Amino acid sequence: MFKRVDKLQIDLPRPEEPDPDAAGAVQELLGGRFGEMSTLNNYMFQSFNFRAKKKLRPFYELIANITGEEIGHVELVSNTINVMLDGHVGNGSTNPDETPLEPALSQDNKYHFVLGGQNALPADSAGRPWSGDNVFSSGNLVNDLLHNFYLEIGARNHKMRVYQMTDNEAARELAGYLLVRGGVHATAYAKALEEITGVNMMKMLPVPDLDNSKFKHARKYEEKGEHRKLYRFSDDDYKLLDRIWNGPTPVGPPGELEVVDGLPEGGEIPDLEHIPEEFAPGFDEDQFRELSKRLQYEAGM
Amino acid sequence: MFKRVDKLQIDLPRPEEPDPDAAGAVQELLGGRFGEMSTLNNYMFQSFNFRAKKKLRPFYELIANITGEEIGHVELVSNTINVMLDGHVGNGSTNPDETPLEPALSQDNKYHFVLGGQNALPADSAGRPWSGDNVFSSGNLVNDLLHNFYLEIGARNHKMRVYQMTDNEAARELAGYLLVRGGVHATAYAKALEEITGVNMMKMLPVPDLDNSKFKHARKYEEKGEHRKLYRFSDDDYKLLDRIWNGPTPVGPPGELEVVDGLPEGGEIPDLEHIPEEFAPGFDEDQFRELSKRLQYEAGM
Amino acid sequence: MFKRVDKLQIDLPRPEEPDPDAAGAVQELLGGRFGEMSTLNNYMFQSFNFRAKKKLRPFYELIANITGEEIGHVELVSNTINVMLDGHVGNGSTNPDETPLEPALSQDNKYHFVLGGQNALPADSAGRPWSGDNVFSSGNLVNDLLHNFYLEIGARNHKMRVYQMTDNEAARELAGYLLVRGGVHATAYAKALEEITGVNMMKMLPVPDLDNSKFKHARKYEEKGEHRKLYRFSDDDYKLLDRIWNGPTPVGPPGELEVVDGLPEGGEIPDLEHIPEEFAPGFDEDQFRELSKRLQYEAGM
Amino acid sequence: MFKRVDKLQIDLPRPEEPDPDAAGAVQELLGGRFGEMSTLNNYMFQSFNFRAKKKLRPFYELIANITGEEIGHVELVSNTINVMLDGHVGNGSTNPDETPLEPALSQDNKYHFVLGGQNALPADSAGRPWSGDNVFSSGNLVNDLLHNFYLEIGARNHKMRVYQMTDNEAARELAGYLLVRGGVHATAYAKALEEITGVNMMKMLPVPDLDNSKFKHARKYEEKGEHRKLYRFSDDDYKLLDRIWNGPTPVGPPGELEVVDGLPEGGEIPDLEHIPEEFAPGFDEDQFRELSKRLQYEAGM
Amino acid sequence: MFKRVDKLQIDLPRPEEPDPDAAGAVQELLGGRFGEMSTLNNYMFQSFNFRAKKKLRPFYELIANITGEEIGHVELVSNTINVMLDGHVGNGSTNPDETPLEPALSQDNKYHFVLGGQNALPADSAGRPWSGDNVFSSGNLVNDLLHNFYLEIGARNHKMRVYQMTDNEAARELAGYLLVRGGVHATAYAKALEEITGVNMMKMLPVPDLDNSKFKHARKYEEKGEHRKLYRFSDDDYKLLDRIWNGPTPVGPPGELEVVDGLPEGGEIPDLEHIPEEFAPGFDEDQFRELSKRLQYEAGM
Amino acid sequence: MFKRVDKLQIDLPRPEEPDPDAAGAVQELLGGRFGEMSTLNNYMFQSFNFRAKKKLRPFYELIANITGEEIGHVELVSNTINVMLDGHVGNGSTNPDETPLEPALSQDNKYHFVLGGQNALPADSAGRPWSGDNVFSSGNLVNDLLHNFYLEIGARNHKMRVYQMTDNEAARELAGYLLVRGGVHATAYAKALEEITGVNMMKMLPVPDLDNSKFKHARKYEEKGEHRKLYRFSDDDYKLLDRIWNGPTPVGPPGELEVVDGLPEGGEIPDLEHIPEEFAPGFDEDQFRELSKRLQYEAGM
Repeated sequence: MFKRVDKLQIDLPRPEEPDPDAAGAVQELLGGRFGEMSTLNNYMFQSFNFRAKKKLRPFYELIANITGEEIGHVELVSNTINVMLDGHVGNGSTNPDETPLEPALSQDNKYHFVLGGQNALPADSAGRPWSGDNVFSSGNLVNDLLHNFYLEIGARNHKMRVYQMTDNEAARELAGYLLVRGGVHATAYAKALEEITGVNMMKMLPVPDLDNSKFKHARKYEEKGEHRKLYRFSDDDYKLLDRIWNGPTPVGPPGELEVVDGLPEGGEIPDLEHIPEEFAPGFDEDQFRELSKRLQYEAGM
Repeated sequence: MFKRVDKLQIDLPRPEEPDPDAAGAVQELLGGRFGEMSTLNNYMFQSFNFRAKKKLRPFYELIANITGEEIGHVELVSNTINVMLDGHVGNGSTNPDETPLEPALSQDNKYHFVLGGQNALPADSAGRPWSGDNVFSSGNLVNDLLHNFYLEIGARNHKMRVYQMTDNEAARELAGYLLVRGGVHATAYAKALEEITGVNMMKMLPVPDLDNSKFKHARKYEEKGEHRKLYRFSDDDYKLLDRIWNGPTPVGPPGELEVVDGLPEGGEIPDLEHIPEEFAPGFDEDQFRELSKRLQYEAGM
Repeated sequence: MFKRVDKLQIDLPRPEEPDPDAAGAVQELLGGRFGEMSTLNNYMFQSFNFRAKKKLRPFYELIANITGEEIGHVELVSNTINVMLDGHVGNGSTNPDETPLEPALSQDNKYHFVLGGQNALPADSAGRPWSGDNVFSSGNLVNDLLHNFYLEIGARNHKMRVYQMTDNEAARELAGYLLVRGGVHATAYAKALEEITGVNMMKMLPVPDLDNSKFKHARKYEEKGEHRKLYRFSDDDYKLLDRIWNGPTPVGPPGELEVVDGLPEGGEIPDLEHIPEEFAPGFDEDQFRELSKRLQYEAGM
Repeated sequence: MFKRVDKLQIDLPRPEEPDPDAAGAVQELLGGRFGEMSTLNNYMFQSFNFRAKKKLRPFYELIANITGEEIGHVELVSNTINVMLDGHVGNGSTNPDETPLEPALSQDNKYHFVLGGQNALPADSAGRPWSGDNVFSSGNLVNDLLHNFYLEIGARNHKMRVYQMTDNEAARELAGYLLVRGGVHATAYAKALEEITGVNMMKMLPVPDLDNSKFKHARKYEEKGEHRKLYRFSDDDYKLLDRIWNGPTPVGPPGELEVVDGLPEGGEIPDLEHIPEEFAPGFDEDQFRELSKRLQYEAGM
Repeated sequence: MFKRVDKLQIDLPRPEEPDPDAAGAVQELLGGRFGEMSTLNNYMFQSFNFRAKKKLRPFYELIANITGEEIGHVELVSNTINVMLDGHVGNGSTNPDETPLEPALSQDNKYHFVLGGQNALPADSAGRPWSGDNVFSSGNLVNDLLHNFYLEIGARNHKMRVYQMTDNEAARELAGYLLVRGGVHATAYAKALEEITGVNMMKMLPVPDLDNSKFKHARKYEEKGEHRKLYRFSDDDYKLLDRIWNGPTPVGPPGELEVVDGLPEGGEIPDLEHIPEEFAPGFDEDQFRELSKRLQYEAGM
Repeated sequence: MFKRVDKLQIDLPRPEEPDPDAAGAVQELLGGRFGEMSTLNNYMFQSFNFRAKKKLRPFYELIANITGEEIGHVELVSNTINVMLDGHVGNGSTNPDETPLEPALSQDNKYHFVLGGQNALPADSAGRPWSGDNVFSSGNLVNDLLHNFYLEIGARNHKMRVYQMTDNEAARELAGYLLVRGGVHATAYAKALEEITGVNMMKMLPVPDLDNSKFKHARKYEEKGEHRKLYRFSDDDYKLLDRIWNGPTPVGPPGELEVVDGLPEGGEIPDLEHIPEEFAPGFDEDQFRELSKRLQYEAGM
């Protein structure tokens, strides 16, 4: 089972204007072959399907626990896309005959404006939907761990490329953070593989070989030691993470790998504006007030 | 963010023999168009993408909180498939030349034996992968709620049909439980729609119109009042669920709808055997012992 | 625009028992790459997209008119599948705990029993959905006609193979009829190509080179001259069909090609039984009576 | 069976210049998940698959008859795309070395220029082909009707958004007309549901809640009463439509719902120019003349 | 079996600047429905699956041998895309914070920059992956040959359209060459069909009917007689090609069809630059030198 | 460029009866995610896309040369499927009314009998077509090599599982041979990675950790030293393979890795019978004779 906490893993900067081009590119990090939906579902299914959990407990816990963080990554990328799509892309008119969505016409990702109401979709940078084909769950532990190591490295490559495509602060904050956290997961699977096979996988890191420290928005998270921390996303379970997660960090500023009990401090989930030309969510102020009164809650802002 | 609890939502019966036919059918409830991956991802994305969260807080919380339960449903269906695939389908030989996977040859779902190591896959009953196209997140709240209501009803239809296809105890326990919990979600979206539009959607339930009480494995959960309970899958958030979730239940044994603080009691996550002919997980007893000794944990069983 | 007539193109035999295996194979003729959805949509889109309609009127009319027949083919294959799926596949119990859909478990097409309520689906023999990728509409008339000729020949091959897979009377009646009518369309496109390019395409027919007369259920339609008739599926339009459709038939019993004004005589659309274990359509006799009374119509049978 | 009438449902304005951006967006209304190919195929398959047609005759007829209108909608959207793609996008040269299709290079929908000869394709705004997965035909009447109601509302949302993306007169005329006709279908399914379940679904309309009257090109059709009319797309069948289609209209200018015998008056099907750089249709004037002479028809224009 | 020769079929011009728009369009000729991956895989599978090879030897050899050329076509298109993507699209900075991939943000094909490191992908002009559904291998020789003839003509249409979309020298050299070689294959299948059926298929060529001579980059290859030559892509096999490939050429400058023993002279495979902002291949000069020294080879350039 | 040699890589045993179940499973090794089409296309595209070929020559040559072997693997699997599908599955009648393809009706892979004429298709064990999404070509050499290593290991897992599903001699001969050759490729990529990163990847092999020697049909190839040989699939190129391929073998019977100049000795390509009920190839003896006479070749057997 899973419990939900109404916070994001970090504070997201808020762009002043909609930036649909950057939002379109960041979709690759959400619903692409190497996006966060892929990391989430790979580890989630591998944790469900893990054989001999008791005999291989630390390995099971490692995968199961990282799953917990990955749902939060999916949440974080989605929110990043959402803040990059928030606001009026056009003239802001509420008269349909004044073509308020006109700029959407020349966007190559029209789905953001037609299928979604300027929000994240489970699809990649070309609008192609995420597919279960992206999940590898063979049941063979070494094969699965090797896949995960490869998956994290492919994902790193994509994050670095998307980072270099846009200077949108939200996109970069996201990519910088994910570079560091993805590095933690790559290291975790490298260590697990090393425990079983004796192969010194960590020595390969990082791939691509450009240090996270070259990325301003990653560097700041490394400086906080985020590259050394494996959070325990559970109240009472997954107590054996330190059997695998220990020793000096193979990447980033030197230090010891450490298991942190509990979640990152995190940041507020951004609220999103009403966009009348998208009918999203589709209420006017009177309706908000009436609902708030009838259901007896305090409607914020 | 999300936290993980190392338990299932219910205790699952353990079939004595592998039952790949039934496992193949239950895949529809996992990765089919109306399967639990669809309910999970629809509500998850809608909660990420919700506009005017503060002004429409109870509606946001309802969707966000149900997401929490749905991840557990994906976990539950996956585990059900796994216990139905556990064990030797063939002669159990560890000599490849003795064709230990021979019975898999006539299974129409060969993926369970080749792609997976006799485990759940993010795919439907024909092996087709789950697709992001199954997610609807339009940003318009009424449209999204109407979709969710429709989705739950379609899902109910599928559960009822799969239930009638097999008497495997694990499959039925799952389908019975999901019928009741799916009914809770259908009711929740009906009530939300009714609050906003004034349309008496609950009067339509159940669709199909066969009562849950006709299904032995659903009846027992209704008798425990599971059809009236909305669990709060969060430690500190989603406190406004009762603004929508209240009043008499429209389906099942009469009683008042109630919000339950915290998770269901739940059951143990089943462990799965080593299946040497699948190389899953791919260790022998000596290797288990050595890992357990080196990593200093007690290997169960 | 299109008008609908509540009849099928032929009378369909009614199998006594459900025959899901044969129904599964016939799906290829509906939603397969060379199925009737493909012929329909190819000609439909080509007729919409036809350039220089006035200057090339007879060619436009030929494609537009055949579209009219093809919708009826889609209808006919769907009804064939439906009569082959009608009735109880299992014990007929209305108690879900008695597993009334148990035989569906070992069917490789479970979609017929879960997605559909034992009815036709827009998919092929493996359950894969029909795709718009099956449509070719290049705008170049010779290229489009050549495609259509090739499409009809591929479709003929598939019909002949499916015919040989089952002796179900409904399946064979369908396949036999479609062999003859598909032959008409192949001939039509051959003649159109010949008018434009001077290449004697008709000489290639039939492909595969086994005569329709070798198929009992095709022979009877050839004996009625169905291989020579091009029906005009329109009240007032497409009067130039005879500019292309004329001369001796290149296949089947000798005779002159003729344009027939109006539709084939046709047969009754089969009604389908209530299947309670599928909740399809989901009413009992009392409900039927009440609806009939309230809406003031005479409920047949 | 179906008969074809060589007219469109309305008169389409003729844009002066090709407008590939708008054409690309309108593809969503043709081949998108909520496009007209989806409405057509849903109702078409549901009418083929309807169980207990005689006992539920008015409901069967409602779905079967709306299918008739929907084919015309697919025709209308296709023609709209075609008039928006007609003409030279580039320099109009017939010398390939002068790069006459150069502007297509920066179009995100290159399919219009390579796969098609500047014409409609069975695909959505991203070029992804329409899929049979968009069809829902469960056999359970309430479930199917609920789906149809939801489908029409999703489709309405998409039409409203596309309308606001472009001021192209053809696109707007189409979207305005479809908004009104889609409203008729939403109402029809709402009424059908209401007859069976007693739930006052019409009260929910319209969703999104912006009135059609706010759209100039929809308003004019409402003023003609098009929102109250259900055309009978058949010569002799579907005589029971008025058992469901009656009473006051729930949306648009007040008035009584009425069944209209026969088709809308309609408009001319636009002819499309020869585009030599697309080889579509691929003839020069001499060839046109020769064909016309040889086949003895009068080549228009 | 197959042997590889480290050369291209022709010399490719080297564009001075990256031209991602043109590269995106040329992808259609690689991974589109009618692209070179389709021609390759169709003929390859048909040659593997050919029945009665000995009795129909010349036909088997024709298809098997053309397969040999087609792999080289896939290689040639891929290299064309690669030279069109070579170099810096942006500021060339190696500092990620200076957004060196910024221009990729407004490209509709972002895959070239994220999935690939500015290189060819097995996908079409919209980024959709090539699919095995593009292969037709029915086992019926006439049907397969007819398909191949149709495939080559569809491919010709696409090449002509892409040619007219860009004046990039590499793209045009490719398209011009492929027009001529594709013409050879169309002719070959036409002749094979004619041998078997007696239908004078060659008379239909070319489709579309614009001569290759109208394309500067095709004309030069016709002048070299490339339209008359069928290369024998084998050292010792396929000696019966001349049984089918003989007589006067039906298209292009007059002359006799001839079988050429051995491969075309060909051109050098272009080397591709290091692109640091893509981490492709991901080495600096020191690393190159060290590898070269350690592995004892002379590192070129 | 590529040249073709009319031989298979090994001699294939000839099953006495058609074995469609086994043929269906072997499709996974052809068109599955980890099948030979995937290995072929990955290495082929990586060789086309290789950056800095001259500076990294031995690595380029390694990948380019293995591509040469992989086309032969695709050929070998296809032929294996073909010999397993050769012959009459039913009564062998040439009268369609006697249902000669009746046994195909209960096969879950109906494509083999309808789309194909009992022959190989570019699809996996569920009939899903091979997709370009299976190709990874990032341009980053370490990332690509790591992918290839992972791909070979996943492929090994699948081969081992399919081997254990059937005792068909052809299937086992294939799987045994591919296990050994796939091991060569895994080793090659491990060595390449080790040269660049210093990580001792070979130490991980084999994964799954069951030795090839446990498989009778693999053992015999290891005994011939096939696990140590890297064939040079080229007349004049790829001379630097020994810079990477050298030293002791990490798996199989001890010995030195060696580069073999030229192709394996190989075996005859099996001819396939005429199957009249499939119209494949669709000729009778008279027609064979007439073609042979007219085209002046000696028709074998």
